[in-house]
Amino acid sequence: MYATVMHGPGDVRYEQVEDPKILKPTDAIIKLAATCICGSDLWPYRGLSDQDGPAHMGHEYCGTVVEVGSEVRNIKPGQFVVGSFILSDNTCPHCDFGFQSSCVQREFMTGAQAPYARVPLADGTLVATNEIPDADMIPHMLATSDVLGTGWYAADASQVREGGTAVVVGDGAVGLMGVLAASQMGAGRVIVMSRHKDRQKLALEYGATDIVEERGEDGIGRIMDLTNGVGAESVLECVGMEESMHQAMGVCRPGGTIGYVGVPHGVSFDGQQLFFGQKRMLGGPAPVRRFLPDLMDRVLAGKIEPGKVFDLVLPIAEVAEGYKAMDERRAIKTMLRVEE
Amino acid sequence: MYATVMHGPGDVRYEQVEDPKILKPTDAIIKLAATCICGSDLWPYRGLSDQDGPAHMGHEYCGTVVEVGSEVRNIKPGQFVVGSFILSDNTCPHCDFGFQSSCVQREFMTGAQAPYARVPLADGTLVATNEIPDADMIPHMLATSDVLGTGWYAADASQVREGGTAVVVGDGAVGLMGVLAASQMGAGRVIVMSRHKDRQKLALEYGATDIVEERGEDGIGRIMDLTNGVGAESVLECVGMEESMHQAMGVCRPGGTIGYVGVPHGVSFDGQQLFFGQKRMLGGPAPVRRFLPDLMDRVLAGKIEPGKVFDLVLPIAEVAEGYKAMDERRAIKTMLRVEE
Repeated sequence: MYATVMHGPGDVRYEQVEDPKILKPTDAIIKLAATCICGSDLWPYRGLSDQDGPAHMGHEYCGTVVEVGSEVRNIKPGQFVVGSFILSDNTCPHCDFGFQSSCVQREFMTGAQAPYARVPLADGTLVATNEIPDADMIPHMLATSDVLGTGWYAADASQVREGGTAVVVGDGAVGLMGVLAASQMGAGRVIVMSRHKDRQKLALEYGATDIVEERGEDGIGRIMDLTNGVGAESVLECVGMEESMHQAMGVCRPGGTIGYVGVPHGVSFDGQQLFFGQKRMLGGPAPVRRFLPDLMDRVLAGKIEPGKVFDLVLPIAEVAEGYKAMDERRAIKTMLRVEE
Repeated sequence: MYATVMHGPGDVRYEQVEDPKILKPTDAIIKLAATCICGSDLWPYRGLSDQDGPAHMGHEYCGTVVEVGSEVRNIKPGQFVVGSFILSDNTCPHCDFGFQSSCVQREFMTGAQAPYARVPLADGTLVATNEIPDADMIPHMLATSDVLGTGWYAADASQVREGGTAVVVGDGAVGLMGVLAASQMGAGRVIVMSRHKDRQKLALEYGATDIVEERGEDGIGRIMDLTNGVGAESVLECVGMEESMHQAMGVCRPGGTIGYVGVPHGVSFDGQQLFFGQKRMLGGPAPVRRFLPDLMDRVLAGKIEPGKVFDLVLPIAEVAEGYKAMDERRAIKTMLRVEE
């Protein structure tokens, strides 16, 4: 088959690769209904993270099971499934504790920007629907696999409460999903830091109550004004840069919580500053598997439309243009149609 | 009166000072029933924190109110009171949120290693008993003012649960109070890292179920063995050094929580390590005022005896020896008797 391979920074190709096959008895092979490009795919694309040789890209996926290994018990060919970008057995103590992203058998999904993909730990990782969803549900189902699950985790980790105040730092795809999540969890006020008109529009659709365009100290000052000098009890840090983390710290009230889901790049913390700042913090790769059944139910019930975050849809053969559009910020997030 | 003044590292004197008096209408003057020396007093004693000239020492206190300012409404002369080492109005939004240690009017108590002391923000800070406690209650009441309140906060911040597993890093006075707190909160297992026989004994009295003498990687390994390779869901970091924080990180399970109450000295965190470690963290100066009524009730009901942590009792005139004994680790914590 043809699939997406990154040969180096800026060099993404749709080219001939070997068909995926069952390598372990716990694997499944799925035929993708759609796939997409993640903000984290831009790190190697921009040469900001190391890469050893050509890499099969893609970790967000949904589709139909076509084959399962001999030890797969719950997942069956013909089922429509969604899985997390982190593969987990869903039976180890860390999975039981709701942190499937630290599963003792954890692997990171790869090779999903393709018509077919191998999913290890299929029983633990995949969640099946009762019926095959309609075509218009596909973007929303696909979004649950990573971007929505990650935004949801940011809201969960930052302990968004019914009626509480949440600040979302970052208006990328994950930040927008954080807005949606905080709103779904009943936050009375959802303040999003955003400078892009198109993203502000989507944030408002997803339930943002206030937009703050300023950044840095000005942005912190605006949010402190909006919260009567108190700050927010929940802050969703959805970027991972030093400036964004500084903003998150600056707007979080003492005893409030920062959920940080952007992989930190060039961020460090001084112990005494952290101590006297007195913010509760929880970050990490999102345990999407914990939330997946609930998120899929919300999508299928028509309660949420996370797939609106895909503002560019391309045939997978044009994946290189999808990367380019996101790199140049012409697109928030690119969905790739998989036709044969 | 005579009171405790630190003139510089290693130089503590009990000498003539001015009597404390009402400086603001929200002040109270108390006659101390007893006072004590804090582990944090050893930082300037050892020359490890800056000091501008002679300092009136002491921030742990209980005693009888002798005078109040004109705006003090709830606290009255003759009442027996305990207050936190952090002075707070208990009415601002941060106090309402349970983080009185970040009160907008926050001040740090000082001058309590003396027969009389001035307590600013008396209405917000002081908690009165219904009756004057018996003399044998005084050490336990005194302990609630800081050392127990701080250990309690470590347990609260680390989300100790009924039946859960807690690890206490540090067997100083605060660590021992952390053991007591975790045990009172119903932890099924309380593992304490301790190398000192006398402290181990007290830890066991306070509810520790396991003692780990090893430190560093060996200590982490022992605790991972004790928890079947999983780690603890609650870790109380009661030291504040790089090695102790490293141990806390090493024994906390993914998604578990570290409550850190030792003021960090020379500790910093790398963003990616913190992210991928996926520990929830909350530290800071303890909001003792939040817990004080409950802790005082537990003491008066005879449920807890935190005052056992005072293993050296001296007349306040011998305060210099009290510092020396703690500095040389001959005493866990020194109580000072205040006679006239």
